[in-house]
Amino acid sequence: MAKLYHVPLSPFCRKVRLSLAEKKIECELIEEKYWEKDPDFLRRNPAAKVPVLKIDGRTMAESAAICEYLEEKYPAPPLMPRSLDARYEVRRLVGWFDDKFHNEVTSKLLYERVNKKVTKQGFPDSGNVKAGAKAIKYHLDYMAWLLDHRRWLAGDTMTLADFAAAAHLSSLDYIRDVDWNRSAVVKDWYAKIKSRPAFRSILADQVPGFPQPPHYADLDF
Amino acid sequence: MAKLYHVPLSPFCRKVRLSLAEKKIECELIEEKYWEKDPDFLRRNPAAKVPVLKIDGRTMAESAAICEYLEEKYPAPPLMPRSLDARYEVRRLVGWFDDKFHNEVTSKLLYERVNKKVTKQGFPDSGNVKAGAKAIKYHLDYMAWLLDHRRWLAGDTMTLADFAAAAHLSSLDYIRDVDWNRSAVVKDWYAKIKSRPAFRSILADQVPGFPQPPHYADLDF
Repeated sequence: MAKLYHVPLSPFCRKVRLSLAEKKIECELIEEKYWEKDPDFLRRNPAAKVPVLKIDGRTMAESAAICEYLEEKYPAPPLMPRSLDARYEVRRLVGWFDDKFHNEVTSKLLYERVNKKVTKQGFPDSGNVKAGAKAIKYHLDYMAWLLDHRRWLAGDTMTLADFAAAAHLSSLDYIRDVDWNRSAVVKDWYAKIKSRPAFRSILADQVPGFPQPPHYADLDF
Repeated sequence: MAKLYHVPLSPFCRKVRLSLAEKKIECELIEEKYWEKDPDFLRRNPAAKVPVLKIDGRTMAESAAICEYLEEKYPAPPLMPRSLDARYEVRRLVGWFDDKFHNEVTSKLLYERVNKKVTKQGFPDSGNVKAGAKAIKYHLDYMAWLLDHRRWLAGDTMTLADFAAAAHLSSLDYIRDVDWNRSAVVKDWYAKIKSRPAFRSILADQVPGFPQPPHYADLDF
């Protein structure tokens, strides 16, 4: 069986977990305290990051490379559309969330509030938290603008772009940092994705020291 | 003709320029002072980043998404191998350079020394410069370890992984931040890639206030 070394609230791990689950690839989840730099873990991934996936006799790192591999090796159900233009749009949005959203929002809210405490690196920087709380509004509005024209973020089918976005937002939702009242279309989109069987393991996550808020796993949030 | 909005020393732009040139796609280069947030530019790319490529009637952003698009639309000559394992390895290494190397080296040397001056954001932070100068050694050693086993970074053919790495290293070489004496195999690899016709435009780059050092464009450096 495949093994995924992960941490529960990492959006990069969650994107891979969603891809695996959607494609019904059974996978054992192993929590990895990557910041402790255990030598065995560094052998698995010299970049010292999660996710690390053991599958098909290989050990893989880098969530974008892993998701493209899973798509090529296990194409059903597809998380990438067929047309080149649509594939570009999916990858652009994955980049948007994993780079821009990550830098402007996730690293400023989740990493300040949770990762710093878990890895014993001190207290949240209030300037960063403020900047993240401001930036997420702009990103939710951008998603709303996309979803006004489309059923899913990258077009009319659910793709890896939706999983990338949902991975970040679900981790932020765990720490109550998403205002779902800001946009009805974004809330509807999240309700749709949240109700998929692939999302169940993510809704069951528990992080010691950070109790799960009641609305987090509620499909009618 | 295609148009690329870029800045000369951006490794993300250079990776796209190398892909375009290797595939012999003619492209007009337009320097874009993205930090001035010109409204026309923001319309082209709401992420306010370069590169932005106008091609095939579309305007595209995110260098990883652009390069995958170019590969799918203009497959010759290929910059991605055929086998799934090899494709994974290319994407893993592109991620390694564009994420890890970028954060640990490029942002700490190039952005401190050049981007801060060009965008009038003050002086280089000496702690960052020191950290970047230390980290690049580790990365060069990692490349040497890969190249001890392989002709090119991801395997026996030249791929997008080589272009991603060469894009970062060439920009750092412009500001004399690469010690080519550290590893003979890395130097040989760079000599091979530097002598390709696709590299010519990069070797001709000039940045006002930062004169090109003599070894930079010398194929026998």
